[in-house]
Amino acid sequence: MSAHIALQEGLVGITSLLEYRLDTSAPIRALTHTLLRGPSTLTEGERELIATVVSHRNACRFCTAAHSAAAELLLDEHVTVEAVKHDLDRAPVSRKMKTLLRIAARVQESGRHVSSADVTAARAEGATDIEIHDTVLIAALFCLYNRYVDGLAAFTPDHPAYYRALADRIVHRGYLRPEGGLPAPATSAPRS
Amino acid sequence: MSAHIALQEGLVGITSLLEYRLDTSAPIRALTHTLLRGPSTLTEGERELIATVVSHRNACRFCTAAHSAAAELLLDEHVTVEAVKHDLDRAPVSRKMKTLLRIAARVQESGRHVSSADVTAARAEGATDIEIHDTVLIAALFCLYNRYVDGLAAFTPDHPAYYRALADRIVHRGYLRPEGGLPAPATSAPRS
Repeated sequence: MSAHIALQEGLVGITSLLEYRLDTSAPIRALTHTLLRGPSTLTEGERELIATVVSHRNACRFCTAAHSAAAELLLDEHVTVEAVKHDLDRAPVSRKMKTLLRIAARVQESGRHVSSADVTAARAEGATDIEIHDTVLIAALFCLYNRYVDGLAAFTPDHPAYYRALADRIVHRGYLRPEGGLPAPATSAPRS
Repeated sequence: MSAHIALQEGLVGITSLLEYRLDTSAPIRALTHTLLRGPSTLTEGERELIATVVSHRNACRFCTAAHSAAAELLLDEHVTVEAVKHDLDRAPVSRKMKTLLRIAARVQESGRHVSSADVTAARAEGATDIEIHDTVLIAALFCLYNRYVDGLAAFTPDHPAYYRALADRIVHRGYLRPEGGLPAPATSAPRS
């Protein structure tokens, strides 16, 4: 299926949308960079796990593959990513992280599904206000991203190599648009 | 119910969250201002209707009341707002706007629910690529906002006067944070 609107030739997924309208993508990129790469007591890998769990539960193939690859690169293994997607209760993450990922999963359904008990459980494992705030906001942000990508039917590559290259970029360069435009690997990415 | 995290005394709803972390709220405010108040072939009232429909379908009381009030102020009547929430098919909006609001309603459920037929129907009524793009992104943004507000249980005032004052602010001043902080009406808003 082609995208619902005409996007720049050679670009795929969220990149094709972020290049479509730069005045809206600049704040989206800035928000993402601050939340996922800025100073935090959650590691970058933990924050990518939140993005992965939400994208997986929204069944957004592009975002799930991209953030799974980013989390795997940051964690240097793939067991944890598979576990948080398919069996969160047994995932090899800290007890605190498990409570935060459960909150993220509630947010994916609806903000109204986050209960005081969910928050109390996170606090009991040492989660701070800012960690709870950031978990909710990262989960909400990926509910935006997942709908943006799938709502406009942005092209979703099948090849794992595409996502490994994308993960390398967002892990090592972050989420801001490079000055002067996108680097070569993204603009020359194969469409399948 | 009090909010899930400690927020500044005297602030309510989304405002209490946006003041909690200014480095994340700046891009959220910028994105909203560009999408809802920037140049567009959709009127500000039409864009507030998209925000209203999505917030209503997410059952976010705060955002529904705020953007209903903003749309009513911009449209100078309340019939349309009630209709798009409760009986979209018969709502007194243009045929093009009806197709765009239907796309927004799909996005609220899942980006994957937006079909080629939905987009074809919008094009048949004259919707452009950028209008379809902006409709999807505004709908996705309010899926973020609704989850942010309810996921942290931000206080939701009951009094209609609060939302009329908020609507007056976002209609006449927009979504950016005023230099020097919030104006008096927001910081002194009654909590009920």
